[in-house]
Parts: sequence; structure tokens; C-alpha cells
Amino acid sequence: MTTLISVPLGEHAYRIAIGANIRRQLPALLAEYTPLTPKAPALIVSNPRIWRHYGTEVHEALTQAGWQVTPCLLPAGERYKTLRTVEKIYDAALRQRLERGSTLFALGGGVIGDMTGFAAATWLRGIAVVQMPTSLLAMVDAAIGGKTGVNHPQGKNLIGAFHQPRLVVIDPDVLVTLPPREFRAGMAEVIKYGVIWDAQLFDLLSQLPRLDRMAALPAEQLLQILERSCQAKVDVVSKDEREAGLRAILNYGHTIGHALESMGNYRLLNHGEAVAIGMIAAGELAVTLGYWSAEAAAAQRALILKAKLPTTIPAHFDVEGLLALLQHDKKVQAQKVRFILPTAIGHGEIFDQVPTELIRETLHRLQA
Amino acid sequence: MTTLISVPLGEHAYRIAIGANIRRQLPALLAEYTPLTPKAPALIVSNPRIWRHYGTEVHEALTQAGWQVTPCLLPAGERYKTLRTVEKIYDAALRQRLERGSTLFALGGGVIGDMTGFAAATWLRGIAVVQMPTSLLAMVDAAIGGKTGVNHPQGKNLIGAFHQPRLVVIDPDVLVTLPPREFRAGMAEVIKYGVIWDAQLFDLLSQLPRLDRMAALPAEQLLQILERSCQAKVDVVSKDEREAGLRAILNYGHTIGHALESMGNYRLLNHGEAVAIGMIAAGELAVTLGYWSAEAAAAQRALILKAKLPTTIPAHFDVEGLLALLQHDKKVQAQKVRFILPTAIGHGEIFDQVPTELIRETLHRLQA
Repeated sequence: MTTLISVPLGEHAYRIAIGANIRRQLPALLAEYTPLTPKAPALIVSNPRIWRHYGTEVHEALTQAGWQVTPCLLPAGERYKTLRTVEKIYDAALRQRLERGSTLFALGGGVIGDMTGFAAATWLRGIAVVQMPTSLLAMVDAAIGGKTGVNHPQGKNLIGAFHQPRLVVIDPDVLVTLPPREFRAGMAEVIKYGVIWDAQLFDLLSQLPRLDRMAALPAEQLLQILERSCQAKVDVVSKDEREAGLRAILNYGHTIGHALESMGNYRLLNHGEAVAIGMIAAGELAVTLGYWSAEAAAAQRALILKAKLPTTIPAHFDVEGLLALLQHDKKVQAQKVRFILPTAIGHGEIFDQVPTELIRETLHRLQA
Repeated sequence: MTTLISVPLGEHAYRIAIGANIRRQLPALLAEYTPLTPKAPALIVSNPRIWRHYGTEVHEALTQAGWQVTPCLLPAGERYKTLRTVEKIYDAALRQRLERGSTLFALGGGVIGDMTGFAAATWLRGIAVVQMPTSLLAMVDAAIGGKTGVNHPQGKNLIGAFHQPRLVVIDPDVLVTLPPREFRAGMAEVIKYGVIWDAQLFDLLSQLPRLDRMAALPAEQLLQILERSCQAKVDVVSKDEREAGLRAILNYGHTIGHALESMGNYRLLNHGEAVAIGMIAAGELAVTLGYWSAEAAAAQRALILKAKLPTTIPAHFDVEGLLALLQHDKKVQAQKVRFILPTAIGHGEIFDQVPTELIRETLHRLQA
């Protein structure tokens, strides 16, 4: 069974298809839900590990349906999310003579999805991209909403473009091969949606005994988690495609999260782990400021612990250094740091006036 | 006196301001016609030659109006229109801590405009750009319409994005310092608009004794030429922002033009010179196919000669090589070459079925 979620973005509208084993039905999904046709040459962009697991079957399904599609394998890992690596996609696009009607298929996690999306946004001033996320993080976040980009040597995602996919294909079966640490990282974003947007998702997560690995989740509940998370992202993005306002609430946990990731050189803490600590911090700020109840903050902490995600800041991190990094964050608006704080389970709001001193105290308190 | 042309692109709408000496009024134009404010840091992107002539006065005008603006000078020339050079803009953007509300000012010809526009399209997923074209080509073509981009080592403008400017400021006085060969190149695009869109512009050009240098044109006529050319581009672009259909007619003379440029390694023939020969070729094809009169083609040739632009293909160019390059052109659609042909003075149409044999004959006939 395939669940379809519509992303209502006018001329950029598209669908998200979610279902066990649907990766093999890709050509039928393309035919039914997109204007894309096998006429023009296409690329599947992936990395060697993902390709070994799922590349051949996707490639064969497309080929059998008449697509002239060539693999383009990139090195795995966030440190390769650069313009240099995107140039490899450009080179393949040139070799295969991609045309304006061509398609890039992104088969992989967030790094592959972001780079393939950026290449699609900028090759011939924009060609089609289909996202086939293989990590939990990419399924519930990166693959949806049209944010694409690469890192600058001095900052993440500083170079990028908005470019919506034509279709997102989410097959939970591929999570079987996802490393457990990456599964947990994705769960941080799922918890985020529960806290700032969807109280029912929060309840669903609260009822599950474990959130730290795929094998611990019943298939039906996993599908529900994916569907509700995608719907949450779609709800927000479709109201604010270009991040003029509301979309900022998706940055809950990310302001401090980005600083933590950066201080750990993107290795000590991965994105989801840093966001988990960032949510703990934002939750405490919200409680201190009187916007949120201590009970709600405790319920959030319980979910983060069930997902075996960290809740404290590494002891050797310098709090003043973290505060300085907050000032560098690209969400800076006229030199003020913006925070997203929860005001109820299932509801977050944007706050621009959180006192620096309070942030400092909270960070110190969270140090292990 | 300032002439204003509105570019009606919905939420991407903006204005083109044209007038003698208006470069010094930039801050007032920004205040009156854009939402941009001096609050966030900004860059002026230019090259050393242009900066020497006009940089200081523009910089001072902005600074006096409260803008915190820093110059970012790039090497001049099409061969530097690369991702590597755009990275210098990214680096400056990072150093000056540009924010989402920041602005890039592009002060220069098409190369500066295209790269600055691309950097603006992709820094923080899109910030504002103001175009201040200093070449005739950039004034009547590159600065308007939102096409931005850089070259791939194997092809021009393969990497890019659509990103509309917030304001275009055209000051004909700066053409005084434009090298004559570049002035003539820009005139090729002016003639193009006369042939495929604006019969009155064609008549105006026909009445002028010379078109080859600024000094030969009365100021009033030069302003009219700029205004009508910009209006022609705006008319077409506003009906087809993303080049789905109509906008393709702006490629009149460009299909063969691009092949000629490429074969001359972008040095033997510049863009306008190649387009001039391309228009001669397309005109002859149109006459042979019975779409256009021999008289109209002769009138077009007369304008190209008055602009001292070339009308023949260099003798050592290999015609079969040119035909192969036509197949590579990025305007290829499902392996067919698209031609824009005039059907009357002031009207061009898209044709997909021009026989290769006829193109071959025409190219041979045009060889010097």
C-alpha cells in the first residue's frame, strides 16, 4: 500500500509516496504522478555503499521502463558536501548530454539529496530532481521542502538554492541497512515535529517503548511516524516555501544544535545528536521564561532518552565559544539571534529577544 | 530625467531605471523603488577597470546614504566566469557577514552581472542583487531577465539559476569608457530586438547613419535605443520568465552564434560578433524557406554593416564542425536543433524542423 502526501506549492507542487518496498515501483510512480518521461537522458546520483544495497534494483527498474539512466557515484560523507563534489555531477551531466527535460535521481541520505538537488537547481538553470531518501533524516526532513546546497569551508549549507523535487519516494524497508547511529539522528527530527507541530505524533512516540532502532519499531508504527513527520514538514513548507516566516520554526533545536555540531567539527556530534541537545536547551529556556511547563520539558527529555540521543553538552566544549558561534549562525537577522521555543506540546513559536545571559546559564547547566 | 520600465513578474517584479548620470542617484532609486535598506552589510562586485572609472563614486554615494558596503573586485574577462571566481564572492560574503537581508551590487558588464547574480542566487539560498550594467550588451540583455550563471570548462552558461534583480540601473554615460569592439557587440543584440520584436526600433536604427560607436549616436537616440531594447526584453521575459516557450525567440542568431563563438574559442569572435553572423545565417535560412523577404534580409544586413559587425564566417572554420556543435547546444530538445527565424521585420518565430542540409549549404555560402 502506498500513502500519498500532496505538497501544495502551486506550479512547484509534487507528491511524496510512502510505502514498504515501493522503490521497485519507481517507474510506475513517475508515470502516474509526474510529467517526467524516459525521453531525455538521466542520472542516478548515489554513493558506493547505498549503490551496493539498492542501486542495481533501482537502475534496472528504470532501464526496463525505457529510461536511459547512468549512475554517478560520489564519495560518502558530509565532508564531501562541497562545490567540488557537485562538479562531478556537472561533469557526468555533460558526458551524458543531459537536456532541459532530463532528470536527476538522488538515491541516498541528506548529503546526496542536498548535492543532487543543488546540481539540479543549477544545471542548465534548473532540471528535474526526484528524491529517493535512504536515511531516516533525509526521509522526514532533507528530501522534502526544496532546500538544496553544499557547505562552504567555513560554514554548513551557506551555498544553496530552493529547488523543489518532482517526486519523493520513501521506502522504509531501506532503513534496514542504515547504521544505528544515523537512525537515532533521524529520530531527533521526528521528535522535533512532535514537539513543535504535531501533538498526536508526540503521543504516538510516547507510547512506543523504544525509539533507538528500526527493529524495535513495529512496521505499522514506523509508517505512521514517517507519514506524520512528512505531513508536518509539508504543512509548514507549503505555508512558507522560501522561509520568510513560519518555516523558521523547523529550526527548533537547530540554533544551538548548529553551534554544537560546528564545535565538534561535525564528527563528535552528528546533526541529529546536536539537535537533540539543542532541543533540551531550547526546552529549558522556554521553561525558564515561563512559556513551557516543566512536565512538557520532561516528556520531551523522555523521548530523547528513548531514542538514545544525548542530552548534555560535552564537558570540554567552551560555552563562550558556543555563544560566539550562535552570532555567526546564518539565521542571524540584523545581528540578533533567533530562537524557536515550544509553548505547548505540538506548538512552537519564534522568539527574537532571548537574553544572552540566560542562554549562557542554560548552556553551563547542560554541560556533562 | 529618469525613464522607468516595470518588469511585471509577480512577486519577482522590479524596475529598470534609465537615465543620463543616474548612477550617482543609486541610493535614492533604492529607497524609492526597492524594499532594500542599508541595515544589512552589502558588497559591490566589480572588476579593477570598471572600479577605476566608476567604483569610487558609486561606493561613496552608497556609504553617504548609510550603506555598509565593501568592494569585491574580480579579474576581468569571460575566462574568469567560473565557479572558482564565484567562490571569491562567497568568501567576501562570509568575511563581511552578509545576512539574508543583504544585497550584492553588480557593477560591470555581463560577466560581472552573471557571476554576481549567481552568487546572489546561491548565497544563503538567495539574497538580493542590484544590477548596474556598464556595457551595452549587459544593459540591453544580460542585466535583465534573471538569467545568471557561470561557464563549465566545456560549455558556456551550463551552470546557473534564474534569479531576478531587485533593480536595474542603466546610465548611458558610462558607455563612454566602453571599448569600441564591445559597443558594437552590444549593438548586435539591439538589432536582434528590432528584427524579431520591435519594427519601430528597426526603423529608428535604419534612420541613423552610424551604429558602430557611442560618439556617433545623438544622446536622445541612444536613450531611445536603450529604452526600446530593454522594453523588448521585458515584454518577452515577463510573458515567459523560465524560458518555457516564447523566451526562446530571444535566441535569434544565437544557435549558430554559439557554435561560432565556441569554434573561435571565444576570442576570435565575441558574443555580439558571433550573433551578428548568426542573424545573417538565420535570415538567409528564413528567405530560402520562404518565411522572409529578400528585402527584409537586406535591410537587416545593412544594420549589421552600419554597426561594423561581421557578416561572414571565417574561412578556416570547418562547417561540419559547426554542425556538430549545433547538436551540442544546450537548447537541444530531444536531439532536434531549434531555430528562431524572422517572418517579418519585428517578428520572429520558433522552428524545429529546419533541414540539416539547408543549414550546411547556408553555412558554406556565408564563408568568406
